[in-house]
Amino acid sequence: MKVGGRQYVTVWGSREGVPEVRVIDQRKLPFAFEIESLTTVGAVAIAIRDMHVRGAGCIGATAGYGMWLAAGECRGSEERLRELAAQLTATRPTATNLAWAVARQLRALSAHDASRWPEIAWREAEAIAAEDAEWCRRIGEHGLPLIREVAARKAPGEPVNILTHCNAGWLAFTDWGSATAPIYTAHRAGVAVHVWVDETRPRNQGARLTAWELAGEGVPHTVIADNLGGHLMQKGEVDMVITGTDRTTYTGDVANKVGTYLKALAAKDNDVPFYVALPSSTFDWETADGVADIPIEERDGGEVSRVEGMLASGELAEVDIVNPGSATANYAFDVTPARLVTALITERGICQASREGIAELFPRGGG
Amino acid sequence: MKVGGRQYVTVWGSREGVPEVRVIDQRKLPFAFEIESLTTVGAVAIAIRDMHVRGAGCIGATAGYGMWLAAGECRGSEERLRELAAQLTATRPTATNLAWAVARQLRALSAHDASRWPEIAWREAEAIAAEDAEWCRRIGEHGLPLIREVAARKAPGEPVNILTHCNAGWLAFTDWGSATAPIYTAHRAGVAVHVWVDETRPRNQGARLTAWELAGEGVPHTVIADNLGGHLMQKGEVDMVITGTDRTTYTGDVANKVGTYLKALAAKDNDVPFYVALPSSTFDWETADGVADIPIEERDGGEVSRVEGMLASGELAEVDIVNPGSATANYAFDVTPARLVTALITERGICQASREGIAELFPRGGG
Repeated sequence: MKVGGRQYVTVWGSREGVPEVRVIDQRKLPFAFEIESLTTVGAVAIAIRDMHVRGAGCIGATAGYGMWLAAGECRGSEERLRELAAQLTATRPTATNLAWAVARQLRALSAHDASRWPEIAWREAEAIAAEDAEWCRRIGEHGLPLIREVAARKAPGEPVNILTHCNAGWLAFTDWGSATAPIYTAHRAGVAVHVWVDETRPRNQGARLTAWELAGEGVPHTVIADNLGGHLMQKGEVDMVITGTDRTTYTGDVANKVGTYLKALAAKDNDVPFYVALPSSTFDWETADGVADIPIEERDGGEVSRVEGMLASGELAEVDIVNPGSATANYAFDVTPARLVTALITERGICQASREGIAELFPRGGG
Repeated sequence: MKVGGRQYVTVWGSREGVPEVRVIDQRKLPFAFEIESLTTVGAVAIAIRDMHVRGAGCIGATAGYGMWLAAGECRGSEERLRELAAQLTATRPTATNLAWAVARQLRALSAHDASRWPEIAWREAEAIAAEDAEWCRRIGEHGLPLIREVAARKAPGEPVNILTHCNAGWLAFTDWGSATAPIYTAHRAGVAVHVWVDETRPRNQGARLTAWELAGEGVPHTVIADNLGGHLMQKGEVDMVITGTDRTTYTGDVANKVGTYLKALAAKDNDVPFYVALPSSTFDWETADGVADIPIEERDGGEVSRVEGMLASGELAEVDIVNPGSATANYAFDVTPARLVTALITERGICQASREGIAELFPRGGG
């Protein structure tokens, strides 16, 4: 997607000169836009671990390119290759795309002579990144008619108002994003859209990343406190909600950034359709009851009590915003029961958020 | 309530020496606790206008004491008295308690000779402040059995978990608060309580004021992002919700700080009782349909895009937290329909949030 009028992806490789993985350093966004050059597996591991890159698809693609560096760095030693692979996998133990991309590279390399590893790993890394973008592009294609349908009922020039929570944008993948893909696709197709962007406390990924993405692509949008969505729906100011998901059960329960469930309740109460966009790699084919059985990560309370932002001087700084000494709690996700989800938007098409609906599109499950 | 072990109210008068109104300056709380001394009507007007004091009851009581200063400052001139009264009333035009307190003072003074005005105004100011505290104390008394009832079902030592939104605490009144009154009453009665404090974006009154209040009184509490309440309710971690209200229709629709509606929906979805505590002065006896007809204040978007907090150096600073250039929207309240409200807790007792329930406790309405 576009940044300052130029087309970007979140991660790419360069073979001109020394092998290099380039990523958008997402830590300082939206206050600074910096491309980071990574030339060693160690540097890639740090970029993943310290969240220069984040988001399932983006982490997976970065790890894919990291394995391309590993294929050169190991100098033909399979033992060293596996050590480097393990180093990458250990950076974010719960990111399934990371382990999946590393394993996919090891599988590909094991079928070839060590002398061909750098070339094989390069092709595989390119394929992983391209597939990620392609799945997101298809999500956009399948989501577009849902937006067009609302647009057709609007007065000319009146935009379709879409609310989203957190960042399920292109920054979380290699391109397009999941929740944002239908929005970008509609915008590029000339459909008037306007996005209500939940700031998404405590880490403010909406206010920082989603708003920055939308601005770059020229999509009209308004950042709001997470508290406001219900009121906007009561007042008819939201035509649909589209969110991403970190894990969706094969029965349609949706784990996503904390606060998603509250928006789904408000959508239901106001007859606003609530869509969840996801590449099928996000399905959990083992878990039936999301609310009961999806483990919810508890993160450091400092994310609640401190916030990072830009001082009037232009410097980034953290400020304490909670009564000193008060305890904080910080669970990162919640689970929206399938009954509150209007439909899922996947790379294969749209389906009901139910065992039957999902099985119809994905009859072989994760196989 | 207690601050650093000492008993305080939000506003009081002193007749030792020069007549003086003292208020807790709430602007720097919780980072600094300062008592401000106001010796002129002009100073009182600034304190109200610039929100050194805030909250319906607290503003009313401050205006009451302001009129006591006016009674001296006017030197017996009724024209000057009315000018000073108008100056106070103009500071926050939508605060009904403010206009009400000023009018009450004018009514009281008009029945007496100008030579007695300072004495009459003093008594009236003391009465306004005392009544405010007394109504809140009674709300606490009536709310206590609701908490005791839950406590009786708990294992010994296990606290009753109460979620609250924004600051409907003693800082918003002269003492006790509305939503917090049952909590303080239960805590002082030895019932184990624990409060989930919504930080309450965008102005963070929960994280700053409610958490500070609870800490001063020694009530166990945990500050959370506004997004978390739904998840906590799904997990059985919330026994009841108690909020305040800025305006409640005679049919039971509750206007309160934005985000309240989302918590009410989650409470309903998880069979958690949702109580609203209010002195009956908060009832709107004219409006039947709160969602359709209560006007919702739109405030400056800077409250969303900038946040104030304390730097590591101990200095207060504001930081920008939203993508520069992105639009923001900032509606301060939302309306929770009566169907989501379990009951109202008033100074006269508990009633259903319905026309019939309210009329039973308040048969003469606002008369």
